[in-house]
Amino acid sequence: MKIILIGAGGAVGKTALQTLNPRHEVITVGRTSGDILADIEHVDNIRAMYKQIGKVDAVVCSIGDGHFGPLKGMTGQQLMLSINRKMLPQVSLVLEGLDNVNDRGSFTLTTGVLNRDPIVGGAAAAAANGAVDGFVKAAAVDMPRGIRINAVSPEVLEASREKYDGFFRGHRHVSNEEVGLAYSKSVEGVLNGQVFIVE
Amino acid sequence: MKIILIGAGGAVGKTALQTLNPRHEVITVGRTSGDILADIEHVDNIRAMYKQIGKVDAVVCSIGDGHFGPLKGMTGQQLMLSINRKMLPQVSLVLEGLDNVNDRGSFTLTTGVLNRDPIVGGAAAAAANGAVDGFVKAAAVDMPRGIRINAVSPEVLEASREKYDGFFRGHRHVSNEEVGLAYSKSVEGVLNGQVFIVE
Repeated sequence: MKIILIGAGGAVGKTALQTLNPRHEVITVGRTSGDILADIEHVDNIRAMYKQIGKVDAVVCSIGDGHFGPLKGMTGQQLMLSINRKMLPQVSLVLEGLDNVNDRGSFTLTTGVLNRDPIVGGAAAAAANGAVDGFVKAAAVDMPRGIRINAVSPEVLEASREKYDGFFRGHRHVSNEEVGLAYSKSVEGVLNGQVFIVE
Repeated sequence: MKIILIGAGGAVGKTALQTLNPRHEVITVGRTSGDILADIEHVDNIRAMYKQIGKVDAVVCSIGDGHFGPLKGMTGQQLMLSINRKMLPQVSLVLEGLDNVNDRGSFTLTTGVLNRDPIVGGAAAAAANGAVDGFVKAAAVDMPRGIRINAVSPEVLEASREKYDGFFRGHRHVSNEEVGLAYSKSVEGVLNGQVFIVE
């Protein structure tokens, strides 16, 4: 398969790369590193990326910044920052990319644990995750030409334990291999409209 | 209890009104009808509403327009219309209203069936529902002074059967009483961070 992977430089994206790269042609796309440089927060970057790469069998995306902080004092703008940086780019990849994915190809988006097992300060990120999870479930019944769409929603990675030290007390940490399996199932399997929880 | 109910003129909001009005002081708020006129898509309207009403024990919201249509051809702007009209106003009610709700009071937002049991054309609405559901779950752990937050996520109302004729084949239709119970549980009960599914 020919696969676009956006966000391969991140800890979660790396798990998809490690899993898929040995048996497929993976084209990595990122803001600062990758085979192709593109910032998918800008829809013109998405269009240019698809134009440059052409038809593919799968699009995998693992990106998403956003606001993190207490609810009291949070503004609507801060919440929308998470929507605009984690939800809208991933959804736009799908809306702009339908014609670039081959018959029975797939989209795989990435969410996370915060909208099912919340921590303090995570309400904006949880809203963005929930939006992507919801979009995936409903878009799945509306896809043309047998194209599938799923989300991977991992717990905190073992590899990110230090980075998030203290924020996720009591949470399991999952291995790169476990998260990679979810991307494999989404890209190389047959399921559609699923949120693959890795925990 | 003193309760603000936004969207009492809609089919879903009416179920909350029928349930809560007999035993509480319910102040209805709407764009075109209600005790107070306000359009909560505008944050200045939300602020003016809270200023006028003062402290309450519960805020219940049942609003939400948005884009409905096939995925193929949907634009990011159309998807964001649903976010901006169904998610952001409800979330803003919470962010702007924390200081207006008494200790151990509550917020109750409204989502719906589309992000768990999708139909064709509902991807944008599903994203908005998912965002609200996710926000509610995470905001719940971050609420000050024992304030609670929940969402009510009803199937299609029996009362809306004609309005949506043909769109929800195979879906159950639920009674006003059943949906009203969910609002009652959220406002008059003790649970927090729940999405009360009525189906």
